Order: sequence, then C-alpha cells, then structure tokens
Amino acid sequence: MTPYQKLESAFRHAALIDEATGFLVWDEAVHMPDQSAESRAEQMATLNVISHETLTKPEIGDWLDAAETAVAEGSNAELDAWQRANLREMRRSWVHTAAVPADLVAAITRASSACEMVWRTAKPKGDFKATLPTLTEVLRLTLELGQAKAAKLGIGVYDALLDQYEAGLRAADIDVIFADLAAFLPGAIERAIAGQAAHPPLEPKGPFPVERQRELSLKLMRQVGFPFERGRLDASRHPFCGGTPEDLRITTRYDEGDFAKALMGTLHETGHAMYEAGLPKAWRRQPVGFARGMALHESQSLLLEMQVCRSREFVAFAAPLMRETLGVEGPAWSADNLYRLGIRVQRSFIRVDADEVTYPCHVILRYRLERALVAGDLALEDLPGAWNDGMKELLGVVPPDHTLGCLQDIHWFRAGTGYFPTYTLGALAAAQLFQAAGRAIPDLRATIGRGEFAPLFAWLREHVHGKASFLSTRELLEQATGQKLGTAAFKAHLARRYGV
Amino acid sequence: MTPYQKLESAFRHAALIDEATGFLVWDEAVHMPDQSAESRAEQMATLNVISHETLTKPEIGDWLDAAETAVAEGSNAELDAWQRANLREMRRSWVHTAAVPADLVAAITRASSACEMVWRTAKPKGDFKATLPTLTEVLRLTLELGQAKAAKLGIGVYDALLDQYEAGLRAADIDVIFADLAAFLPGAIERAIAGQAAHPPLEPKGPFPVERQRELSLKLMRQVGFPFERGRLDASRHPFCGGTPEDLRITTRYDEGDFAKALMGTLHETGHAMYEAGLPKAWRRQPVGFARGMALHESQSLLLEMQVCRSREFVAFAAPLMRETLGVEGPAWSADNLYRLGIRVQRSFIRVDADEVTYPCHVILRYRLERALVAGDLALEDLPGAWNDGMKELLGVVPPDHTLGCLQDIHWFRAGTGYFPTYTLGALAAAQLFQAAGRAIPDLRATIGRGEFAPLFAWLREHVHGKASFLSTRELLEQATGQKLGTAAFKAHLARRYGV
Repeated sequence: MTPYQKLESAFRHAALIDEATGFLVWDEAVHMPDQSAESRAEQMATLNVISHETLTKPEIGDWLDAAETAVAEGSNAELDAWQRANLREMRRSWVHTAAVPADLVAAITRASSACEMVWRTAKPKGDFKATLPTLTEVLRLTLELGQAKAAKLGIGVYDALLDQYEAGLRAADIDVIFADLAAFLPGAIERAIAGQAAHPPLEPKGPFPVERQRELSLKLMRQVGFPFERGRLDASRHPFCGGTPEDLRITTRYDEGDFAKALMGTLHETGHAMYEAGLPKAWRRQPVGFARGMALHESQSLLLEMQVCRSREFVAFAAPLMRETLGVEGPAWSADNLYRLGIRVQRSFIRVDADEVTYPCHVILRYRLERALVAGDLALEDLPGAWNDGMKELLGVVPPDHTLGCLQDIHWFRAGTGYFPTYTLGALAAAQLFQAAGRAIPDLRATIGRGEFAPLFAWLREHVHGKASFLSTRELLEQATGQKLGTAAFKAHLARRYGV
Repeated sequence: MTPYQKLESAFRHAALIDEATGFLVWDEAVHMPDQSAESRAEQMATLNVISHETLTKPEIGDWLDAAETAVAEGSNAELDAWQRANLREMRRSWVHTAAVPADLVAAITRASSACEMVWRTAKPKGDFKATLPTLTEVLRLTLELGQAKAAKLGIGVYDALLDQYEAGLRAADIDVIFADLAAFLPGAIERAIAGQAAHPPLEPKGPFPVERQRELSLKLMRQVGFPFERGRLDASRHPFCGGTPEDLRITTRYDEGDFAKALMGTLHETGHAMYEAGLPKAWRRQPVGFARGMALHESQSLLLEMQVCRSREFVAFAAPLMRETLGVEGPAWSADNLYRLGIRVQRSFIRVDADEVTYPCHVILRYRLERALVAGDLALEDLPGAWNDGMKELLGVVPPDHTLGCLQDIHWFRAGTGYFPTYTLGALAAAQLFQAAGRAIPDLRATIGRGEFAPLFAWLREHVHGKASFLSTRELLEQATGQKLGTAAFKAHLARRYGV
C-alpha cells in the first residue's frame, strides 16, 4: 500500500470508532438513565483515546509527509483531485488530533461528562455556583487543549478552538461580521417588534398530546424527504442530529403547551440530517467526505427551518396538515396566523427559543463572554454578572435567574467553547444560499408552497451536500452564491420578512 | 505495576470496549433501521477487533505467565483469593481470545450480521434455502473458530464451542443429563397434558393495548426490585438483557392478542438483569467479576419466571394488579384461571413460547442437530428434514413450515452454536437453587405471595450473584444447593406443579 492508502485505512478505522462513540452520545441523550453517566463516560473516554491513538501513531505523520511530498513532486499522479483534498483534510485532522496528548483527551471526556451531570441538576435550580468546581476544571482543560492546538497551528488559543468546529474560521473575521450585526440589530429588533405590535397573532391553545405532535413531526419530515429507511426521530432534552449518513438520528423535545417547539426543532434537525444524508457515499469515513464544518452545518438546518419552513408559502402548505394532525381548528390555526406566530419577534431570555432577529444577539453575547473567558479577562465567578450586563446591552432584558441566564446552554459545560459563533455564521450562510437557490430555481417559493422539496435539495446536494469537505467553506460559499460570507443576504431576508 | 496489575488494566480496557459494543448490539435490536445494518456491522467488527487486539498483545501472555509463576512460588503473597481467581479467569479468557486470529474475529462479526439480515427476511417467508449461502459461511467460520479454540484447550470442537458460554461444560456431561430428560419427558408431557385436559383454562380476550401491557411490565419489574435508576425496559423482536450492571437494558416484545408474552418475557429478562445488578461492584470490568456463565445466567431468569412468577402464590398476588392495569375483568382473570393459563402444557412448535415441560425437548433437538452439524454428520441442506424428524420424535408434532421450524431461532445464524444447552441446564439449576432457597427461607412461598422479593434476592445475592466468577459453576451450585447439577429438583418441581 502507498502511504496515502495507509492513511485512508487509518482514518477509516478512526472514523468507525468515532461512529460507535456517536451512538453512545445519542443513547446518553435519548435513553440512558442519569445514574449510568459515570459508567458511560468511562466507555466514551476509552473509545476517544483509542481513536486518538489510531491517528497519533508516529507512522501517520510519516505517511502524511511522504504522501504530500509525492504530490508536491508530481510523483503521486494517481491521486485525483478528491484524493488530494482528502490528503489536505487528513493533515488538518491530524494536526488537531496529534496536538493533544492522550491523557488530555481522556481527562476532557471525563470532566465534561461529570460537569454535564452537575449542570443537569444545577440548571433547573439556577444554581450556577454549584457548577463552579467542575466548570472550572472543564475550562482549564479546554484552555489546555486550545493552547496545545494553537501552538501547532501557529494561531491564537481562541482561534484554535474556533478552528475545531469550522476550519479556517478566525476571531478577526467574526469581529467584522458581529460588529456589523451588533450595530444593525438593536434598531431592527425595535422596528420589527413595533411593526408586529398592531397585529399580534392569536395564541393556539393546548395541550397538544405528545403523540400527535410526534405524528406531525414525522409527516413533515417525510414531506421534506427525510430517509426513514436509514434514520429515525426520538426525543431528548435538547434536539440534536446524531448518527451517521446510513443511520441518521435526530431528536426533538415536546412541550404539551407549545406545539411549535417540537415541530420547528424537528425541521431544524431535519436540515442537519439532510446534509449528512447528501454527503458523497464514495468518500464515507474519509476526512474529505465529512460535512465541511459547523457553520455550514447550521446553515443547512437554518435554511430549512428559518428560510423555508417559516416562510408564508410553506406555512400555507403545512397549515391544513397541522390542523388535521393535531385535531384543532379555529382562527388561531389559519395559515396567516400561524405564519405570524412563526415569525414573532420577542426580546427573550432563551437562545434556543429565540426568533431569528434576536438570535444573533444571544450568540454575540456568548462570543464576547467566551473570548473573555479564554483571554483570562473574565473569571468564571463573574460570568453571571457579565451575562446579565450583556443581555441588558444587546437585548434590553435581564434574566430573573440563572436558569434563564448563564446556565441555559450546555456548551461551556461540555468543553464546547468556540462553537457558538457558528450558529450565526450559519444563519448568514443560510440566507445567502437560499437567495442563490432562488436565483437558480425561479419558482422555488412556489415549489415550497406545494410542499415540493426535491428542487431545493437537488440544488443543495449539488452545491453544498455533495461537496463534503472538498472545498473550503469560503470556496464553497463563493462558488455556490457568488459572494463571500457576509450580512447582506441576511439583512435582505429580514427586510423582506419583517420590513426592517 | 506488577504483571498482575498490568493485566487488570488491560482487561478493564477490553471490558470497556466490549461495553460500547454491547450498547451497539442493544441499539441494533431496539432502534436501528434495518438498512443501517451493514454500517453497524462495520462499527462492531472494528470494536471487536480492537478488544481482541487489546487482549492478544504478546505482553499479555508474558504477564499471565509471570503472575501465575509468582502465585505458584508463593511470591505473590499480596494477591488475595479473589485476585487469584481473577488471574485464573484472565487465563481462561485469554485462551479463548488468543486462540482466534483477528481476521477471523472480524470475519465472524461481519458474516453474522449479514446472515442475520438475510434470516430476518427469510424467516417470515419460511425460506430456509435463502439463508443457505450466508449460513454456510457462518457455520464454516464457527467451525474454524471452534477448531482454533479446541486446539488451545485440548478438547473437542463442540466442547470448545460450549466452553465459550459455560466454562467447563462438556458434551459428555450434557449427554448424561439430556438422556435422562429425553427418557423422562415424553411420558411426563403426556401425563401433564392429560391431567390438564379435564379443566382447561379460559382464554382471556384481547386486544391488550401495548401501552397497558408496558405499564403492567413496569409495575411488576418494580415489584421484583429492578433498579430503574440504572436500567430500562424497551421493545425488540426478541427479548434480551443487555447493557451493563450500571445501565441494565432489558427488552420484551408485545403481542396485542396475548398479554402473557410480553409479561413473562419481561419477568424472564428481569431475572437476568437482577443477576447483573447483583454482581460485586469491586470486581466490575474484571474477568472474575462477570456473571459465571450462560447456564447460571439462564437459571436466574428461569428461577424468576418459572419457579416464582408462574407459581400459584405469585399469580394470586399479581392477578388484581393485572386486572387493574389491563382494565379487564371476568372469570378468565381469576387468580386460579391465570395460574392454570401460565402453566398450560402444549406440544408446540416455537421454543421461546414453550412451557417448561416441553421446553427441554426443543433444546435437546437443537443440541443433537448442532452436534451433528459440527461433527459433519449433517449437511445444512438436510437440516430442515432432520429438524422435522426430531420434532416428531421428541414432541410428536411436525411444523407446517420452516418459519415454525428450523428458521425460528437466531442462534445458528449469528454463530451462536453451542449456546442452546445452557437453556435447559439453566432450568435444572433454577429448580435446584429455588429448592435450596426454600430450605433457607422457610416462608419463601408466603413472601412471594405478598409480592416481597427482598428475602429471595438477599439469598441469591449471597449465594449466586455476589459470587460472580469466583467459583466454578459446579462449585457454586454445590455450595449453594449441596448437590451437583442434576435433574432431581427439576423433576420434583414438575411433580409438584403438574403432578407428573
């Protein structure tokens, strides 16, 4: 075997181990009794260390060097463009992996699991202090990880953390985009709320039995084209998309008083799942075959949820289905009312429940705070105060307790620092991609109004899903939309939908 | 670290990998979409090979030699009795593992998964021929595995296959016991059926909604003492007990026309789970800390299902609960009728639905057939005919199709040859252990009649569960019951319950 072929074999092996871990993560969220967490953490730490060992064997570095030299010298003529891109992604993956000692991998896995368990109990009580010992340890390990990667990548610690989730993403780029949004949004929110005030939507009255909500979720997933022969829908505390392209596992959460939570959660995660489902089969379990990054991943969930499923066209299509499946009727269930309900702008406390206009403010707050935490400019003890100050500044509201404040998100408690920005970059990319799809498919909105998703997904498969990690995010977006990532399409979308 | 300590670390590592695989197996049975089977098989094969590699590193053999030499020379004075037993079990585990080349491990994992998928489709159609190509391959690999182990253990191929599931079990021992049963049972079945003919039980009329059946299962599990804080009940095609002692996963299957299937399946698997739950915490993830073997495991499920939960005392306790939870009433739901329903003897086709009197005949048939397959005295092509002949001889009935015949059990299709005898040895051990518990707890049947399980499980924990693999099965049974495994207690039980 050539060095490149040996690399393919090693990365495939590691990918298979990671898939097993992925199902343990899914099971932990969906089924595992809480008391089994420690035992599960040991299993996951074991697999993480083995996967890590697979990719940090000394030979891997040698094979990478040899394969890259062969490409540079032109003696690797047998490698096609995808294989060369695969080699590039192998190097990237290897740098991230090999930068971290195995004991740090195990320590982070265990500390995150322990911290998550504390957080689960502390969150409903609003007891941030209870999380401090474990959270301090997780942050310490996160910084250690970031420093190790930063040294190898030759970039800053926070940039190294960002780079884990979105290759090439740098704080300097985010600063420009977020400054633009932070200047634009407060006024836009003001105007959107004012514009909606004259005609508030009627509130549909529950309760909505979980079984009917689930049935509605399944119907709409089917309509969108979710491949149930290789995937399923379950419930968990926090909706997510797990599994593999051959076994897609999305989850949602049910609130008997608010049918929209489960429904929009399902459609959001279906967007993620469709990306995974559309990755090229030929490159499964190879670095070039994975989804490009978390910003682009989020663009696919938000494109489906925000751009498509909250559109007037889709709501008009879905309204009769909703009435029939939930067994409801009345003026609150008219397509127009449901549409206005789905785009209602509110200054609220909880990110995951936020509308698309206020959502970026939640993300900007977390971005500022986590950068300060990483830089050492903010002590964990002072996080609750800084959170509340930031909420006041960006959204004009202060949460009454930490349950609705700094305890709401799991990310920091699970060593996920550096992840938050991808949500808003994803929202921008979603707007930009949907705009481009609209140019390519002239009657796109009409197809959506008929519940037809094939044209949209054919376009996405060609321009996004099927590309996997062949291009950089920047290249992919430029080729698909003709522009680099910016705020223009998002602002145009808000202008169209909210008149702001 | 001493060689012994290094061994503990290596075996713990392998156990953690195997636990991860165990959850993939559980997930496959409970949740996985069928089309994802191939992908899952790759994941499991990967983990199986890694676990295998962990225990076949050359150092392991050296450490075993060194630790055993130290014990023999008395220089290992720091090892207590459990550690010495652990070392014995490590050797045993290692012999089984190291005998098999890694590529055979991977080949068997993949071939079994492929064969199971074919079987799943072929079984409802009764199409045995469709399974022949994959089954032939699985049998070939099973024999290869058995030969490799036989060579290391210095025993026959079939004995080597048996030894995987029950340490020290030999065909010669089974022959004696099964000859006894094969002579006794046909007459006993005849007499039991004749004895019950005069007073057949009334048939409760369904349908019984799955949700109510599940609620009943959960209530009775709670009554028995299943630790829900570290375990759960789900549904699968075939009931089983998976997971770990910290995360017990039992499954049952629901038939809306027959409430007893799910209920007795649940109680059976609860018996397995209670064994796992009672294993000593101090020895988790070490060879000496695992359940002793599959015959003893089956004794725990059958003790709960057959000895306890089908007893007149328990049915009298459970009948009101059943009526209330299923929302039923009438003469079919009297304790006496439910009792007679639960012990009805019938010559039937399906092993898993068989009563305890005919059940051993099903097992004896499989034992004879799999021995002949392993010995090369029976070709797979001739299996259906041999199956039907055996059914006629042992039970006096011939299945009308292979769905009800040789396709009913998954074992051979998943390389599980050598497993079947443990069911009946478990039934004998269950009778013997329950008899001994009854001697130790004079009012045992009265406690069961009050739904009190604590006395019984305290005795089982002391004499069975808590012993894990410290003793051999023979030693354990002799210490717990005062006798080696035999048919006397089982026959006494049948005499008491069926008058045979």
